[in-house]
Amino acid sequence: MRVFGIDCGTEYTGWGVVQVEETARERRLVPIAAGAIKLDKKQKTPLRLQQVFAELTGLMTVYEPDCVAIEDVFFAANAKSALKLGHVRGVAMLAAATCNLEVSEYAPLSIKSAVVGYGLAAKEQVQFMVARLLDLDKAPEPADAADALAIAICHVHTAQTHFGMGVR
Amino acid sequence: MRVFGIDCGTEYTGWGVVQVEETARERRLVPIAAGAIKLDKKQKTPLRLQQVFAELTGLMTVYEPDCVAIEDVFFAANAKSALKLGHVRGVAMLAAATCNLEVSEYAPLSIKSAVVGYGLAAKEQVQFMVARLLDLDKAPEPADAADALAIAICHVHTAQTHFGMGVR
Repeated sequence: MRVFGIDCGTEYTGWGVVQVEETARERRLVPIAAGAIKLDKKQKTPLRLQQVFAELTGLMTVYEPDCVAIEDVFFAANAKSALKLGHVRGVAMLAAATCNLEVSEYAPLSIKSAVVGYGLAAKEQVQFMVARLLDLDKAPEPADAADALAIAICHVHTAQTHFGMGVR
Repeated sequence: MRVFGIDCGTEYTGWGVVQVEETARERRLVPIAAGAIKLDKKQKTPLRLQQVFAELTGLMTVYEPDCVAIEDVFFAANAKSALKLGHVRGVAMLAAATCNLEVSEYAPLSIKSAVVGYGLAAKEQVQFMVARLLDLDKAPEPADAADALAIAICHVHTAQTHFGMGVR
């Protein structure tokens, strides 16, 4: 299984691809790629959204994931920032649908629980554990890329639990 | 000038196309088409967004507007509903960008002022005035279609004011 994680943001949208490799003896998580789409603040919103859409569909085409995982956000500071974040999230979900990929949404608490084992973990703890679970020397940068990988890892763990494999 | 107005909603997204026809003696608003895209509640969000995107880009291709006008919403009841509305708005703006159309955003107050002459006008007053300004026997239905036409009319009035024609 290959998962494409997306961490939506109005300035940076992180993305990360994680693959589950299984042998008779073990099951391990392999990082395939990660990065962040930087949006040009000076650009008008429709053109920024067009950039996110083009880059995400391009990455999904290149990395051929089996599914997409995205953060479910309800904690936005206010309605205005929630609306702006919604623009990017909507376009990210449309990119997945355009590539015929199912989207799973995970609450921030679930993501932290899946990666760190503690729902209220600090951002640094999440980054540290992402590096550890993916056997990387250090946390991927920028932080948005690490967050996207965390979302993908959360999906792997959740899917495995659903299939009754109980791996964590 | 032909304007494509969009009234975004999580259940119904209204759309309406208005054309400005000018002769030596007068300048009048002509309704070209209007309707509403009904979203299937049972469908998952990414597929609903895909439907909105496909229908809007299809309509923009058919009606060949010169620009797109959309309501600017900051009054959402809470962050959760703002996020959901943001999904649709983001996809609507992406549809415009995909069709190489500029997007103008108007606050609800500006739309009501442009159509009724009073920023706090009731929904019914807006619908009544949309019918009157477009020389229709009755307000277009559903209400979302009439609202989208109101947004398009607001753009026409604002653009005319900007060009110094002062028509209202």
